[in-house]
Amino acid sequence: MIANNIITLTTDFGITDIYVGQMKGAILKQNGDARLIDLTHAVPPQNIQKAASIIFSSYQYFPKGTTHLIVIDPGVGANRSLLAAQADDHFFITPDNGTLSFFIQNNLVQKIYRIENTNFITWKISNTFHGRDILAPIAAIVAAGTPLDIFGPKIDNNNCLSIPADYCPTVTEATIIGHVDHIDHFGNIRTNISISNFKTPINDSILSIELNKHRISMVCSTYAQADSGKLLALIDSAGYLEIAINRGNAAEFTQCRINDPIIVYLS
Amino acid sequence: MIANNIITLTTDFGITDIYVGQMKGAILKQNGDARLIDLTHAVPPQNIQKAASIIFSSYQYFPKGTTHLIVIDPGVGANRSLLAAQADDHFFITPDNGTLSFFIQNNLVQKIYRIENTNFITWKISNTFHGRDILAPIAAIVAAGTPLDIFGPKIDNNNCLSIPADYCPTVTEATIIGHVDHIDHFGNIRTNISISNFKTPINDSILSIELNKHRISMVCSTYAQADSGKLLALIDSAGYLEIAINRGNAAEFTQCRINDPIIVYLS
Amino acid sequence: MIANNIITLTTDFGITDIYVGQMKGAILKQNGDARLIDLTHAVPPQNIQKAASIIFSSYQYFPKGTTHLIVIDPGVGANRSLLAAQADDHFFITPDNGTLSFFIQNNLVQKIYRIENTNFITWKISNTFHGRDILAPIAAIVAAGTPLDIFGPKIDNNNCLSIPADYCPTVTEATIIGHVDHIDHFGNIRTNISISNFKTPINDSILSIELNKHRISMVCSTYAQADSGKLLALIDSAGYLEIAINRGNAAEFTQCRINDPIIVYLS
Repeated sequence: MIANNIITLTTDFGITDIYVGQMKGAILKQNGDARLIDLTHAVPPQNIQKAASIIFSSYQYFPKGTTHLIVIDPGVGANRSLLAAQADDHFFITPDNGTLSFFIQNNLVQKIYRIENTNFITWKISNTFHGRDILAPIAAIVAAGTPLDIFGPKIDNNNCLSIPADYCPTVTEATIIGHVDHIDHFGNIRTNISISNFKTPINDSILSIELNKHRISMVCSTYAQADSGKLLALIDSAGYLEIAINRGNAAEFTQCRINDPIIVYLS
Repeated sequence: MIANNIITLTTDFGITDIYVGQMKGAILKQNGDARLIDLTHAVPPQNIQKAASIIFSSYQYFPKGTTHLIVIDPGVGANRSLLAAQADDHFFITPDNGTLSFFIQNNLVQKIYRIENTNFITWKISNTFHGRDILAPIAAIVAAGTPLDIFGPKIDNNNCLSIPADYCPTVTEATIIGHVDHIDHFGNIRTNISISNFKTPINDSILSIELNKHRISMVCSTYAQADSGKLLALIDSAGYLEIAINRGNAAEFTQCRINDPIIVYLS
Repeated sequence: MIANNIITLTTDFGITDIYVGQMKGAILKQNGDARLIDLTHAVPPQNIQKAASIIFSSYQYFPKGTTHLIVIDPGVGANRSLLAAQADDHFFITPDNGTLSFFIQNNLVQKIYRIENTNFITWKISNTFHGRDILAPIAAIVAAGTPLDIFGPKIDNNNCLSIPADYCPTVTEATIIGHVDHIDHFGNIRTNISISNFKTPINDSILSIELNKHRISMVCSTYAQADSGKLLALIDSAGYLEIAINRGNAAEFTQCRINDPIIVYLS
């Protein structure tokens, strides 16, 4: 796979500080032709699970050969490893903290290297911002076509950190029990329940859904199929079960919060 | 007009989700040379009027040949049309929901096509995110020079949705009655009253302005002409009447909100 | 020094308005090859000191030859000057309001010109948005290689506005008295006290630090050296003294605010 000089950035930095800007500068200093795309900087601080989910559900919308720089790094300065990986013909540069879990679990990883060689970095490396000082220049030269094996030894997938399994829903014959995974800007409620957790199309599978004492039985394929103001369930654009209100805000209506339990009763 | 491979993005997605990032990926997947500029992702959810106003007051700052992708799409999945238009030598890709109203009203539209042909899209089209799955790749290839007529039939401007006329101010001999259209980051109050609503320069025309029981009679051409802390009126950089406070926050001071009425008394 | 067609943007515009987008359009209209990087748009409104600190602590992460457009411009329309400067082989376009103070104080300025010639601008210049109407197109052509001397007369550094000296900490034999300069997205507390204010490494220098009745004596080089939940002090990635909590939010814990005093007791 040939790198295409496009680099996406996924961090928990927010956008009110100068961390993202400095990291972009550090990339351009190493590779002036890199093209930088913000995937998101709104990962909740130090939330590895969210970052793992975001990158796994978004990378495939970018062209093959894209380099994805993922910096959620609460362990900066401690002895956590840094990784350079190739999975499904994309490149990933990240601390070894679980962000690649879904790629590993889905057998998409082609190779993973532990980053040990940073000799090419000509500036002083700070103790607190390896995203800027190490990972950014590595992403920069990977995006320019540098092979991953120059950075260090190839390692086994199983040597990488993986996120806890309880992040996945519990599936039985009668129910799927999951939780609220994300509330989006529109108040749509994304769950951790994926279309792959259902054996049949959801309008056949779902009897009803329980969320915060609300019972949802309207199963749709588009928002517009439900009357305005009524709770509905659908499979969202990333393949996850979503609770929404057509032209309304489902999160406000149900007063739900991240991690609230969701029970899907199966028919 | 030759497309210049620059694409602006205007959405109501906010920037805390991954929707904007995924849409950018979908563009780059189709056209790796496209250059992406965020116009804004802070259109209030599903607010077509605001989006129409934003794109009309901003497009001309970009070079001719720019492609503007505007995704405010509450009707996604229902039977609303998608449009590919050329106006004032710029290109516009948008659901047919009124976002192009001001171009139509100002006779700037050169041609509009209804998008029916999406055969070139090689991925699965979701039911809930046509911005990413259909409009993004279309913007991508329009920006690369694809003529609009390949996407579907040319349609008459009058067949496009237009926003309600009551969005415009009411002009009489004695008054102009408008409303608060936008409060910016500085607390400057933008009205829906345009410089074109006045017959003479505003310092000749305006006797006083009433807003939330405040009476403004200081009519300026720059913020700095007023003393610090005093309410003033001027024509803003987009040609609209604005109420501001030099080095202060007019919206906080007047406690005004979007849609509050503004009465301009004419001399 | 040859300009590299990269332009960073630093403003107090926020990102909910269309000001940033329009300014980017105005750049691209003048120089379609310019590559635009947001440094930050979250400078607090009209806060020159913060902008001066941000640009000085960030510019060096970009390649030499980068053009930095800094628009914090409360004096727009009044008779403040506009500047085009070269410092440490970077270019800076900014109103003359103190944003370049740290470059001047550190003798990094190579040349400064007062912008008087704007003849090349072909559009109408508004009274309220010179960032878009004047500075953006100037940054655009500087980034493309235009020499600064075409814009106006070379001026002496001492003729540029400089920020008040009380922005710097007060250093004595026994203490360094500074203040909270910035609270970042993670709740890390950045002070205005720089590593250069210490005569020896900080773990040798610092006896303890007082902030809002909290006493910090844990001096680290990384977050991870402290137990979770415990206040620590370190030198941050920009060279400033920072108070933080490993995997926690120090600003919430100490309830501190911008400008709160910080006293470092020296050993």
